Amino acid sequence: MCGVIGVLGPPGSRAADLLYLGLYALQHRGEESCGMAVSDGGRVHLGKGMGLVPDVFNRERLAELPGPMGIGHVRYSTTGASYAVNAQPLLAYTSRGPVAVAHNGDLVNARELRVQLQRAGSVFQTTTDSEVILNLFARFGDDDPDTAAMRTMAAIRGGYAVVMLTRDRLLAFRDPYGIRPLCWGRAGDAFIIASESCALTALGVDEVHEVLPGELLSVDAGGVRRRRLPAAADDRAPCAFEYIYFSRPDSELLERNVHLVRKAIGRRLYEERPVEADVVIAAPDSGTSAAMGFAEAAGIPFEIGLVKNRYVGRTFIHPEEGMRHLAVKVKLNPNRQVLKGKRVVVLDDSIVRGTTSRRTVALVREAGAREVHMYVAAPPFLYPCYYGVDISSRKELIAAQRILEEIRDFIGADSLYYLSVEGLCQAVGVRPEGLCLACMTGVYPEPVPEEDVAHKHALEGIEHCG
Amino acid sequence: MCGVIGVLGPPGSRAADLLYLGLYALQHRGEESCGMAVSDGGRVHLGKGMGLVPDVFNRERLAELPGPMGIGHVRYSTTGASYAVNAQPLLAYTSRGPVAVAHNGDLVNARELRVQLQRAGSVFQTTTDSEVILNLFARFGDDDPDTAAMRTMAAIRGGYAVVMLTRDRLLAFRDPYGIRPLCWGRAGDAFIIASESCALTALGVDEVHEVLPGELLSVDAGGVRRRRLPAAADDRAPCAFEYIYFSRPDSELLERNVHLVRKAIGRRLYEERPVEADVVIAAPDSGTSAAMGFAEAAGIPFEIGLVKNRYVGRTFIHPEEGMRHLAVKVKLNPNRQVLKGKRVVVLDDSIVRGTTSRRTVALVREAGAREVHMYVAAPPFLYPCYYGVDISSRKELIAAQRILEEIRDFIGADSLYYLSVEGLCQAVGVRPEGLCLACMTGVYPEPVPEEDVAHKHALEGIEHCG
Amino acid sequence: MCGVIGVLGPPGSRAADLLYLGLYALQHRGEESCGMAVSDGGRVHLGKGMGLVPDVFNRERLAELPGPMGIGHVRYSTTGASYAVNAQPLLAYTSRGPVAVAHNGDLVNARELRVQLQRAGSVFQTTTDSEVILNLFARFGDDDPDTAAMRTMAAIRGGYAVVMLTRDRLLAFRDPYGIRPLCWGRAGDAFIIASESCALTALGVDEVHEVLPGELLSVDAGGVRRRRLPAAADDRAPCAFEYIYFSRPDSELLERNVHLVRKAIGRRLYEERPVEADVVIAAPDSGTSAAMGFAEAAGIPFEIGLVKNRYVGRTFIHPEEGMRHLAVKVKLNPNRQVLKGKRVVVLDDSIVRGTTSRRTVALVREAGAREVHMYVAAPPFLYPCYYGVDISSRKELIAAQRILEEIRDFIGADSLYYLSVEGLCQAVGVRPEGLCLACMTGVYPEPVPEEDVAHKHALEGIEHCG
Amino acid sequence: MCGVIGVLGPPGSRAADLLYLGLYALQHRGEESCGMAVSDGGRVHLGKGMGLVPDVFNRERLAELPGPMGIGHVRYSTTGASYAVNAQPLLAYTSRGPVAVAHNGDLVNARELRVQLQRAGSVFQTTTDSEVILNLFARFGDDDPDTAAMRTMAAIRGGYAVVMLTRDRLLAFRDPYGIRPLCWGRAGDAFIIASESCALTALGVDEVHEVLPGELLSVDAGGVRRRRLPAAADDRAPCAFEYIYFSRPDSELLERNVHLVRKAIGRRLYEERPVEADVVIAAPDSGTSAAMGFAEAAGIPFEIGLVKNRYVGRTFIHPEEGMRHLAVKVKLNPNRQVLKGKRVVVLDDSIVRGTTSRRTVALVREAGAREVHMYVAAPPFLYPCYYGVDISSRKELIAAQRILEEIRDFIGADSLYYLSVEGLCQAVGVRPEGLCLACMTGVYPEPVPEEDVAHKHALEGIEHCG
Repeated sequence: MCGVIGVLGPPGSRAADLLYLGLYALQHRGEESCGMAVSDGGRVHLGKGMGLVPDVFNRERLAELPGPMGIGHVRYSTTGASYAVNAQPLLAYTSRGPVAVAHNGDLVNARELRVQLQRAGSVFQTTTDSEVILNLFARFGDDDPDTAAMRTMAAIRGGYAVVMLTRDRLLAFRDPYGIRPLCWGRAGDAFIIASESCALTALGVDEVHEVLPGELLSVDAGGVRRRRLPAAADDRAPCAFEYIYFSRPDSELLERNVHLVRKAIGRRLYEERPVEADVVIAAPDSGTSAAMGFAEAAGIPFEIGLVKNRYVGRTFIHPEEGMRHLAVKVKLNPNRQVLKGKRVVVLDDSIVRGTTSRRTVALVREAGAREVHMYVAAPPFLYPCYYGVDISSRKELIAAQRILEEIRDFIGADSLYYLSVEGLCQAVGVRPEGLCLACMTGVYPEPVPEEDVAHKHALEGIEHCG
Repeated sequence: MCGVIGVLGPPGSRAADLLYLGLYALQHRGEESCGMAVSDGGRVHLGKGMGLVPDVFNRERLAELPGPMGIGHVRYSTTGASYAVNAQPLLAYTSRGPVAVAHNGDLVNARELRVQLQRAGSVFQTTTDSEVILNLFARFGDDDPDTAAMRTMAAIRGGYAVVMLTRDRLLAFRDPYGIRPLCWGRAGDAFIIASESCALTALGVDEVHEVLPGELLSVDAGGVRRRRLPAAADDRAPCAFEYIYFSRPDSELLERNVHLVRKAIGRRLYEERPVEADVVIAAPDSGTSAAMGFAEAAGIPFEIGLVKNRYVGRTFIHPEEGMRHLAVKVKLNPNRQVLKGKRVVVLDDSIVRGTTSRRTVALVREAGAREVHMYVAAPPFLYPCYYGVDISSRKELIAAQRILEEIRDFIGADSLYYLSVEGLCQAVGVRPEGLCLACMTGVYPEPVPEEDVAHKHALEGIEHCG
Repeated sequence: MCGVIGVLGPPGSRAADLLYLGLYALQHRGEESCGMAVSDGGRVHLGKGMGLVPDVFNRERLAELPGPMGIGHVRYSTTGASYAVNAQPLLAYTSRGPVAVAHNGDLVNARELRVQLQRAGSVFQTTTDSEVILNLFARFGDDDPDTAAMRTMAAIRGGYAVVMLTRDRLLAFRDPYGIRPLCWGRAGDAFIIASESCALTALGVDEVHEVLPGELLSVDAGGVRRRRLPAAADDRAPCAFEYIYFSRPDSELLERNVHLVRKAIGRRLYEERPVEADVVIAAPDSGTSAAMGFAEAAGIPFEIGLVKNRYVGRTFIHPEEGMRHLAVKVKLNPNRQVLKGKRVVVLDDSIVRGTTSRRTVALVREAGAREVHMYVAAPPFLYPCYYGVDISSRKELIAAQRILEEIRDFIGADSLYYLSVEGLCQAVGVRPEGLCLACMTGVYPEPVPEEDVAHKHALEGIEHCG
Repeated sequence: MCGVIGVLGPPGSRAADLLYLGLYALQHRGEESCGMAVSDGGRVHLGKGMGLVPDVFNRERLAELPGPMGIGHVRYSTTGASYAVNAQPLLAYTSRGPVAVAHNGDLVNARELRVQLQRAGSVFQTTTDSEVILNLFARFGDDDPDTAAMRTMAAIRGGYAVVMLTRDRLLAFRDPYGIRPLCWGRAGDAFIIASESCALTALGVDEVHEVLPGELLSVDAGGVRRRRLPAAADDRAPCAFEYIYFSRPDSELLERNVHLVRKAIGRRLYEERPVEADVVIAAPDSGTSAAMGFAEAAGIPFEIGLVKNRYVGRTFIHPEEGMRHLAVKVKLNPNRQVLKGKRVVVLDDSIVRGTTSRRTVALVREAGAREVHMYVAAPPFLYPCYYGVDISSRKELIAAQRILEEIRDFIGADSLYYLSVEGLCQAVGVRPEGLCLACMTGVYPEPVPEEDVAHKHALEGIEHCG
């Protein structure tokens, strides 16, 4: 998961200021690093660094990024390691001048392309897919930019949303299935494109459009040109996880509001498996909307049963062995008067390895709950994702390793219920083909070559063995 | 508003680790600075600084604070200026050895005491009330520590919760009305005292006790001694604002859970003034529990109508004039599908100057709401607070300057309703004498001398004119 | 060793800018911390921190210190421990308003005064002598400032140079023997007082005056008032170490230029003990002037035989055991072509424990020197200093523990010669009474009470045992 | 000017520790940024950043760089702009695995090569010559590393000293004229190669060898292979500026010690133009050795007449207009007792634009000097350098624009004398062909193509116009 944004404003405007605000609105998609590249028509200026938007950009640094067009990125490492060098956008000087690129997603054939490019003399300074895209684009240096971008799209496979910047042009394209989100709109004189609609509306866009599957947008002072890959799907099949977890509640995808979809999921969960209980609580924070829907459908009070400490972050120091149990409650404290003696429904967004759910159930029980019923706002994850979501390998996916009863037993709940795949589609309001459900069903948009199963850490691996 | 904590663990234990966790649990009470003083029996070690707990303390810095007993503080500046020098605890060397002190609250007679002490030769290096307390305690250097603390309590007037540390003793005391919160309990071998119960339960305390009005607790390896001021009130009358705004939802005060009191306030608001509407939303974050109660009582769906960007903090850069309107939505984005065409009830915790509510109403309207009904979870603020709450002076209190209809007009709502004082008491479940309601009723626990009306910035003022 | 400065400029001027420049010129007197306090007539503003002047002050921080008068300080810890809290100036609010103080030196009776003040109710937040001076001054709060300062001077004993600042007055005073340096002058409309004349001349002072022994200067917009302690010495007897090591070569003391005194010392060394040699080199950096004088007198070429790495500072990481010998040469590299096969005279400023000299001799020998003759620009240190110089205790002074031949043997030189006390006086051009030579002769300006022998770390000790 | 270093130690050793020490010894060659790349046999680890060695490397960061072989770099920006992205070494992943490179010097044909590479699809992420070298090397990916390096050397033109690192090999090569310095040696089991001999001797190398013109050293666990470009010069012709300014006094070049060469220059200056004077002083710091030689030859005392404040660095804040004159003396304070009424000889290393010399002369005069005679330890700069020295363009070179008398007049000296080219050669002890004197004589080692005259900022320019 990462977030991208592109901006083209009128002459004399400062894209960096809009990008700064837009990156704030996309920050939840990646907290590891962020950056932006801005063109003043002659020169492309780059600013990026490790950490959150306010860690990387202050007034002085923004001032050093003049120009009316630019692209931005927030990064959530999809690989184990996190290197400062992998912060995006990447900026390079090519035969057509400076080119910057930022992307969200995963290329299935990144490793293969990289080796081909290296054999042809290319050198790579990062382990990002963006650098592969950049080198491909540079190899098509004799083509006009749109053609070069289309040829790049034809060469890469996977789920992606890419923004690129040349001296005088903003390019953006989305994978042929519409897996990774990308939408655009206008706010006054400015053209804006971003991973999530919340960034568009925050910047004043009234009418939000989604980029089509396999579509390229090429924007400059003269207007927008749109082209599509011939092989692109007719309609989008966005990653189901955007609804369940990634996107902000005020974003829209397929014209559906994320909060309302989550609420519908909660309602659907109650309909699929009704329960007698005294209170409904959410596992903070991403279970909240689903819990609201469940409580409404069930007519059971919705309460704050677990309080998450919003100050606990990366720099939190975990105490020595003997006190480790304390750190748990400092992070997530049960609200005892709400839970004591009650039959409690807990809504959580998903279960990956099961350890978090286990800790949640234990906290609720310790606080005196009589019964704990765990409802999960996503179907079980049974298969790995090759399109940009960092779900653990199958060995770590508890749902791929154990049967339901074993999982319930492991997490210690009185009952456990996962949303059905049908229920998910119904809550979103689409047919199953309208979502990428590969991690739940094993049905991938295109065949995944055997050798690519290990591709996730392949680029990292190049450092070891390539 | 500030937060204090004190810890005494068994020999060989590390108070600093417990204080670190406890300060995390109290962080919402003050983000300006934090610190702790720890005694190893011989030496008192001090660590403090500007910023959040993780900004000030890392593993190395904690390691430099050995010893089984200590006190901690998070500071929320109650004065306009914020000086690094005012970070607490204060540590001083007195005739009885090192003494550290930290406090929450405001002393009504701080200025008077300070002038007296200066005339007697004392020098002050900060503008905190804590330094006044420290100097008083030092002046009683020939008394045993408990007596010195009791004499200090007898000299000061106001609302306060104080923790002190000597080489071998932890002292804690609360004002004679029980205005500022302070509670204690045991977790295993450790004695813990803190501003809020959420810090105690997070650290493993099962049974929480409140410190009595005018009570002194004196704790050392030998146990706990308790004494009370003769003039102390029989029962506590905690600041009503602890329920409305300050305390965390999982804290308890007068044995009442803060979240549940807020929910009861929401229910009461609906009962006092029913309304026809389509959705209930909260002004994030502190209106959430009241909105849940209101929605439940009214049978109207509770929705996420405004999404607060949790990354926007002190370092957020406000853009130039022309783009300022954009920053508003980056901070608080309306969820349009939830609001469009709807009659919306907005629950907010309080109205001080009215400008925030006005902006909230405008956002909801812009998103397409048909009607906006603002409900306020607190009665109008009409009088200044002299006991530790930084409510603006009467001139800035919109409720003290305008009639209801004017305020409604100012904020732009279709209707506006404040909780009644009776409703507040009923929601908490106490008689009016059971709360400090001075800022709403003008009835102060004790007469406030005319000249003290200006005391709030008096210590600051000393720098100008003293 | 520390450095102090005070400035009073015309109305509307910015003392902070002058203090900033002046602290740069005094930086060699203390690199641990620095700070300044500036008065704008109403308020006294304080800025200080750990580290060098550029670490603590940037343009923004200077801008926050308005006003035409102020004092500044650079600190060189004279105690083992170094606490941020001990950075100076100290600023306190007293019955006469804000008072800031900074000092260079050591009070012989600091501990005794501190205990007396604590018994009378004073509290201490640092372990500095400055806080004792501040509290004394505050106790004389009914006197006019000059009288209070004179009474403070009468109460303290030792070697000191003190600058104080009230809202509208700059006070400066020097110990009754004139041990610690303090001089003043005018640059245009500004009155400037500082530890060393190099700070005055750098700020444009043409005519430098020394503060007399036991003299108080009290400066405000109306002019300068001068008073003296009745018991003050007729003439100054500055610390000999100011010539040998502390002061910058371009400073003057007793109207004698430090570089020229050092050169005279070098000449005198050759006269006292001529030698046959091929090259004269300095142990960098403080032996340079003496080496120049020696070479000139002897007619032997002066060469750069040892090159000190000027980038090696506090943050240099010493490598693991096996590579430690390498770090030595990274810090100080012998110039082999200069030394190989030569008879080398090495000029060093002083020998304290002997380990540094030993390392120097080893480096010169390794580089191929045939003979190494070590000349020391100071007589042997045999006695502790109670007046502000952090010479190790007698147990660590090699000259107090061993005879000359043993020392020569320990450092590995072919010959070793210390300057005679007479030679030192002659090089400076004064009678022995004209310098404080206590550390060399054991003759202290006043009797040192038996119990004070342990006073050096006494204030620190209060934390342990007081 | 920059500095490079390469290390290959025995298995199990830590190259990073040696590189750290070596970079300290080379720090004077570049203070803008530094870095190192270390190979553990499988992976190449990179650490670099803006600032001095201690700013970039602490114990933790060094620990993250395991492995027995590596290269390091200190950067002195030869272009106006300084970008973090240009910090070296550069690390890239090529068809033969990771390759790191660092270099000192300037490629005359960098722009031409870059355009060729871009046309063939290469992308550039920096504006360094190192990236050109890296891409060339990668293009020869089918050759063995030595051949690829030789082909790279054959393709580039200019003055350079390059170190490269693959997983298991250290490569180093020097331009065919031996303009930029590079030397090597062994310290115990470790092979070390560096820009200056002072880094070798500091790390324990006894016997220092210079890399031959056009020579390639290829080092791995199996030993050292040496090859040379067929067209390489028989003997080295090092940049004369290494003697005059760049190199540390304890370095050797052409087996001649830099300090002793500078002293010979001083002597030669007196012989070429004797003068009657009272004192000889150096313009700190680089005129010191020459001043020593001049004083010795003339029999005039050598004195410290100007004291440079060693704390004044990049972060020094220049005061507002009215006080700017003060900053001058804070940086460089004249020693008045040394200068007053005297006939002063000032030795400076070189004159570029003349403004520094003018300020120096003014300071000496203000301090009361009767006469000021400026001697310059280098012949006049009349031509631009294309081989790595950042001499200003001819328009800024005062010697290329004015006659001697005008320059003397401009700087305000009573007399002005430049070293002759013959004198320089004689002081070094070589024939004119033994030094690169292009900036003084206009005789370049090879014809400089017309279009390359503008090459200096060409790479930067690509951002504007490429």
